[in-house]
Amino acid sequence: MIDPQRARDELGPLVAGVLSDDDVVERYARVVWNTLTEPGDGAAGILTAAQGPVEALARVRRGELSDSVLERGEARLALERWEPRMRPGAVSAVLRTARAARLHLVTPADEAWPDAADDLGPHAPLVLWVRGDPRALEAARSGVAIVGARAATAYGEHVAGEFAAELAASGVCVVSGAAFGIDAAAHRASLAGGGCTVALMAGGLERAYPQAHTELVERIAATGAVVSEVAPGSAPTKWRFLQRNRLIAALSAATVVVEAGWRSGSLNTAHHASALGRPLGAVPGPVTSAASAGCHRLLRELEATCVTTAAEVRELIGWGELTGRGGGESAPRTTDATRVRDALSRRVARSAQEVARRSGLGVADVQSHLGLLHLDGLVTAESEGWRLT
Amino acid sequence: MIDPQRARDELGPLVAGVLSDDDVVERYARVVWNTLTEPGDGAAGILTAAQGPVEALARVRRGELSDSVLERGEARLALERWEPRMRPGAVSAVLRTARAARLHLVTPADEAWPDAADDLGPHAPLVLWVRGDPRALEAARSGVAIVGARAATAYGEHVAGEFAAELAASGVCVVSGAAFGIDAAAHRASLAGGGCTVALMAGGLERAYPQAHTELVERIAATGAVVSEVAPGSAPTKWRFLQRNRLIAALSAATVVVEAGWRSGSLNTAHHASALGRPLGAVPGPVTSAASAGCHRLLRELEATCVTTAAEVRELIGWGELTGRGGGESAPRTTDATRVRDALSRRVARSAQEVARRSGLGVADVQSHLGLLHLDGLVTAESEGWRLT
Repeated sequence: MIDPQRARDELGPLVAGVLSDDDVVERYARVVWNTLTEPGDGAAGILTAAQGPVEALARVRRGELSDSVLERGEARLALERWEPRMRPGAVSAVLRTARAARLHLVTPADEAWPDAADDLGPHAPLVLWVRGDPRALEAARSGVAIVGARAATAYGEHVAGEFAAELAASGVCVVSGAAFGIDAAAHRASLAGGGCTVALMAGGLERAYPQAHTELVERIAATGAVVSEVAPGSAPTKWRFLQRNRLIAALSAATVVVEAGWRSGSLNTAHHASALGRPLGAVPGPVTSAASAGCHRLLRELEATCVTTAAEVRELIGWGELTGRGGGESAPRTTDATRVRDALSRRVARSAQEVARRSGLGVADVQSHLGLLHLDGLVTAESEGWRLT
Repeated sequence: MIDPQRARDELGPLVAGVLSDDDVVERYARVVWNTLTEPGDGAAGILTAAQGPVEALARVRRGELSDSVLERGEARLALERWEPRMRPGAVSAVLRTARAARLHLVTPADEAWPDAADDLGPHAPLVLWVRGDPRALEAARSGVAIVGARAATAYGEHVAGEFAAELAASGVCVVSGAAFGIDAAAHRASLAGGGCTVALMAGGLERAYPQAHTELVERIAATGAVVSEVAPGSAPTKWRFLQRNRLIAALSAATVVVEAGWRSGSLNTAHHASALGRPLGAVPGPVTSAASAGCHRLLRELEATCVTTAAEVRELIGWGELTGRGGGESAPRTTDATRVRDALSRRVARSAQEVARRSGLGVADVQSHLGLLHLDGLVTAESEGWRLT
């Protein structure tokens, strides 16, 4: 049904490498699927996985879904969803826009395809559109998604910036959604630190959304990648934002929510990360700040890990252990040594007997502790007894 | 060894009720133990529990610990600890000070003794000294400890005050340590709200520590209670502060840390609460604030519950479910018992089968939960089935 030569012409520079006719036709078929479906369409995912995109598409066009892997009712609903979108010229228009915007088409058959996407099962994207370097998807896979509220506070933007800058400095890719607020602060700090950063978009890549971030998106594409699963020309609808969020969670190694209101969209990303078994971090903030309420909710309801430093973020993805701020042994441990020190004075020397009485410890015990404290230089021995140094 | 008449004279108004000679002697013996030991002395706890304070004391005085419940080495060390403190007149002096300060002596034999103290096992206090109303100990037991840094910020004091005021308004006792910062903010807000508040002190109760809180301590004693396990005249040493912290955790139903530095003493209280299996809450704050670093540490290392409102604090002690800010369905922490209760009605009785259907649980499961709820008096059994009480 798909003419290889026409597919080759229309795909042109969108695809990489030397491709056979079958390869070209398969990629073209995926673009057709891409135009028929909304992100996360499970029926499309099942069909293309079971029959291959070309064969699945041929059956759909013949209205032959009854003998397929889908249940009867599900198949009927799927056809009802897809049929209104089977319009002549739709695919050619998408590819024309994609070529003009110098995008890359990445499919599961391509080297640059992130296997992590397949963790979404039948809801995995059918293709990915990329502006910039598709290899940045690999960096994203071991990187950290830093997301949060559009209506961020100065505190939130500061923390997102600090984290992203430190991650960039240690070579960790920062993934986000190029939105106002936390997302932009994370991308910008990563760029400033010379790091690789990847933006996942909810709409087609031929233009930036929000428009005010046109230059930011340009800069991200110049060194990292700007990625979307929806075809060029698609508007960023609410549903596509929600589905984009699942991609942010899936295509990175861990997700950190920096600030989020009680019903923020970033909580949606967090739930996807949690459902995918990806580590989830939340940055705490003042309980008096509405912009942190969603983060606290994640700590309470989703058992997110409380992260307060870039080191703790790296720990989420298994980059080294946290060594404890300020070093040294941690939580105050009560020991007999403390009691002995309590019983000593800086001004007057006290006998071991006197220290024993004051500390409520035995003389022998006190003497051994005094010996150890003496070794540490914490007490001095005088003719009348012991004194704190 | 202890003369009942002398004991009765010296204890005087410190003890409550009509007491037999044996009762009086036992209480006096506990005070002797109190003067011999530091808080949390495990050997003293084991001996007094096994032999009673009078007999245990007699054996100690005869140096007869070898045939006792203690291991030989342990017994020797214990005697070495206690002997330096066996000074004539020490107990009389303590009781004189206690009478002058109008304290109450509360022992395990007294009605006001908080059974929760016994959760500390051999490290339980041997007596409690109380200024104010000893019955406040019972309120403390179902109340919440609000603790935190001395070097609190305006944010921390604000949150502590808000929580304590709301808890006071809903009749929840606020327990704390009367220190500067968070402790004082909690006590003050509880007092201002007309609530019962209990202060646990590290030193003897004949004077306030810190001295600047003399008036605050006075006000706490006037409506609630100020409590210490160390004898009047004892200085608040570092060891005693640490041991006092275990009492704060043990004598309340849950502990909430509002602000704490990375090595704050309130983390010690938190560890005790956790070790005792008492619910532990931590209030988040800006990651840029050193005063919140300890709270974040509790969230990370001790799996403390993130608490941001007084309602969430009440939830820690099982006072009603959180209904979710802004109304939405939130907390997915529904236990099966909750689901069973959700499926019951106050108005009509329902069969176990009906409850199973409504709750989505199996009938056998439902029946066992109904049995437990019945024991707790939360449901009643009727001929037609079960009803919420």
